[in-house]
Amino acid sequence: MSPVRALAKGEENLPPNVPEWTRSLGPGVTASPYGAPSPFEKAVVRRSVEWLTATEQSSINFTPLHALEGIITPSGLCFERHHGGVPEIDPDQHRLMIHGMVERPLLFTMDDILRFPSVSRVYFLECPANGGMEWKGAQMDGVQFTHGMVHCCEWTGVKLSTLLAEAGVLPTAKWLLAEGADAAAMTRSIPLEKALDDCLVCYAQNGERIRPENGYPLRLMVPGWEGNVNIKWLRRVKLGDRPWHHREETSKYTDLMPDGKARQFTFLMEANSVITSPCPEKPVKHGKGFHEIRGIAWSGHGKIRRVDVSTDGGDNWRTAELQEPVLSKALTRFRLPWTWDGAPALLQARAIDETGYVQPTIEQLRKARGVNSIYHKNSIHTWRLNADGTVNNVQII
Amino acid sequence: MSPVRALAKGEENLPPNVPEWTRSLGPGVTASPYGAPSPFEKAVVRRSVEWLTATEQSSINFTPLHALEGIITPSGLCFERHHGGVPEIDPDQHRLMIHGMVERPLLFTMDDILRFPSVSRVYFLECPANGGMEWKGAQMDGVQFTHGMVHCCEWTGVKLSTLLAEAGVLPTAKWLLAEGADAAAMTRSIPLEKALDDCLVCYAQNGERIRPENGYPLRLMVPGWEGNVNIKWLRRVKLGDRPWHHREETSKYTDLMPDGKARQFTFLMEANSVITSPCPEKPVKHGKGFHEIRGIAWSGHGKIRRVDVSTDGGDNWRTAELQEPVLSKALTRFRLPWTWDGAPALLQARAIDETGYVQPTIEQLRKARGVNSIYHKNSIHTWRLNADGTVNNVQII
Repeated sequence: MSPVRALAKGEENLPPNVPEWTRSLGPGVTASPYGAPSPFEKAVVRRSVEWLTATEQSSINFTPLHALEGIITPSGLCFERHHGGVPEIDPDQHRLMIHGMVERPLLFTMDDILRFPSVSRVYFLECPANGGMEWKGAQMDGVQFTHGMVHCCEWTGVKLSTLLAEAGVLPTAKWLLAEGADAAAMTRSIPLEKALDDCLVCYAQNGERIRPENGYPLRLMVPGWEGNVNIKWLRRVKLGDRPWHHREETSKYTDLMPDGKARQFTFLMEANSVITSPCPEKPVKHGKGFHEIRGIAWSGHGKIRRVDVSTDGGDNWRTAELQEPVLSKALTRFRLPWTWDGAPALLQARAIDETGYVQPTIEQLRKARGVNSIYHKNSIHTWRLNADGTVNNVQII
Repeated sequence: MSPVRALAKGEENLPPNVPEWTRSLGPGVTASPYGAPSPFEKAVVRRSVEWLTATEQSSINFTPLHALEGIITPSGLCFERHHGGVPEIDPDQHRLMIHGMVERPLLFTMDDILRFPSVSRVYFLECPANGGMEWKGAQMDGVQFTHGMVHCCEWTGVKLSTLLAEAGVLPTAKWLLAEGADAAAMTRSIPLEKALDDCLVCYAQNGERIRPENGYPLRLMVPGWEGNVNIKWLRRVKLGDRPWHHREETSKYTDLMPDGKARQFTFLMEANSVITSPCPEKPVKHGKGFHEIRGIAWSGHGKIRRVDVSTDGGDNWRTAELQEPVLSKALTRFRLPWTWDGAPALLQARAIDETGYVQPTIEQLRKARGVNSIYHKNSIHTWRLNADGTVNNVQII
């Protein structure tokens, strides 16, 4: 299967050469109270694109998907999207206020929040701009930039419905406004129905307290919905009878349609997928032969039911294996064994979720939505694998 | 339910006071290419105990379980146990040799390993010395030290059976020897049956490449078995027809019984559990009233079926809720809503796994195994919650 080296006669009874690092003691157990990756992995970092935004305080960086396996994104590599930079918040001074159309307006300390019944869930979180540079045909160089505005972590916190019950939601309330404590005071309107369904007020991410750039000490999780409504540094939830039409739901995070009208409150992240091996950052180095095609799929509707993979630009499809357990609204790892004949190939993945929704082609998406959008581009992506093993980002129309 | 503050008349229409961190921009997206916890969490680190071992290169530190939620342990906080410190290994120079009773002795580069079909699994890993200081009655101060030799991560790699098939195991082979590339050349014998069952040769931990202290670039995972056989920095697998009786399976990692004989090759980590809230590091700060008792349970046999919790030292038990999905050979988070009356209480958890195995009392364990053991102490643990909310480690006989 692989060109591993067979040992020569005589050599087989020897252990491999003893390397330098086996010849002396390494650092002991007090060396790194909080660990870090190997220096040999220093290239595996979040990366930003300078031309994308005016300032780096209101910008984005990208998860290095090509370097990741499984479904958990390590917290240090989760993409960041900020609207006013990362506040450094003292948790002892942080407060969450719930007010507006409630019976009892309340102010919670972090200790208060931590006392409530808790739940843990693995959820993906995706910026709706993921892939957005490609609506009009831009060809980003690598999966970190085409799809790296997504991550997946284990989140722990309190059900928002639990905190709302404490305050007593009035029957007139239909929406809520969630506000962050960052310099942008990032705010989004969320329908009460979703808030009562599966939203969480989280304080932990992958076991430990949430990282600063992901909302420390408190973040709203709105499972399966676009990243920006998952308000970080959550300080305020106000109940009302209609949406607020704040800046980030009028001038931004709307989808301009061909007729000049804009779709608003397009919260749900529909099924998406991408191949992470091979990809531009992870070329095929060993020539033709066996290669396991690997990738990730996800859907804001729930579980991924099936992922198909094509190696000929969508003419023929084979069903990939999904890594169990497949979790609702979480990344799902798919894998397909493939024998490459060494000829150029067009690699594609297509996700189908538990509602039967099928990830569309870019053609289908442009037909429905035009080319003026920035957000919610979840079309089937194509990598061209060249004969020399390098991989390019291409669009097939 | 909690003493959250109700807002006064007039106050309810205002947002909470605007804190200093909302008044200026924070750092942007290039500030931390690889993120780190908030400075306010600097006390949440691995900790070692100076008197426990002669040198820190052959020692252990402990996972801060009291500060963690859910089931994923962040890689930076996974306990470390080394026998010769942490080697800094160049992955391009690292090799894995498979030899001995095989048809084709083979030498694998990291690129070779990465080509094989991969799998991802969430597994706990526990040092058999976890809790070992308490066999004779020592009272460690806090859950980090009583139970912190355990962690749980998502591991990705190749099935060991796949690599062994490549080499062709001879019918005479019954055991294998796994060897690490650290200065201790840590070696353990493992029955071939287990190797072919569910062992993995892993290169990724929680999505990214394995951390140096956890075996970078390659580690053997032996699910549910004692930590030391999960050889880190894996460089060699030798097939043979009997165990090797190396140092770490004769002078160490055996269990001295009352009759002077030692149990050897006691690989499996039986069901265990501990309450992580409250605990000595996490006292009850709010006085009597509602408290969610939280903890973790695990079993090398497979899935946790049930966890019972007692608040009166084992006279009465209530069944806790298990966080879904419950995964085989992984940490399982349990939770129980409890109303504390403010009187001193004796808190215990008792895990039952899918084989029906019930976590024993310390009395049962000592009756069967005496008090000379260091390893495999998985008895029911007791915290005493005092009237002032502080928590002590106590033993009830």
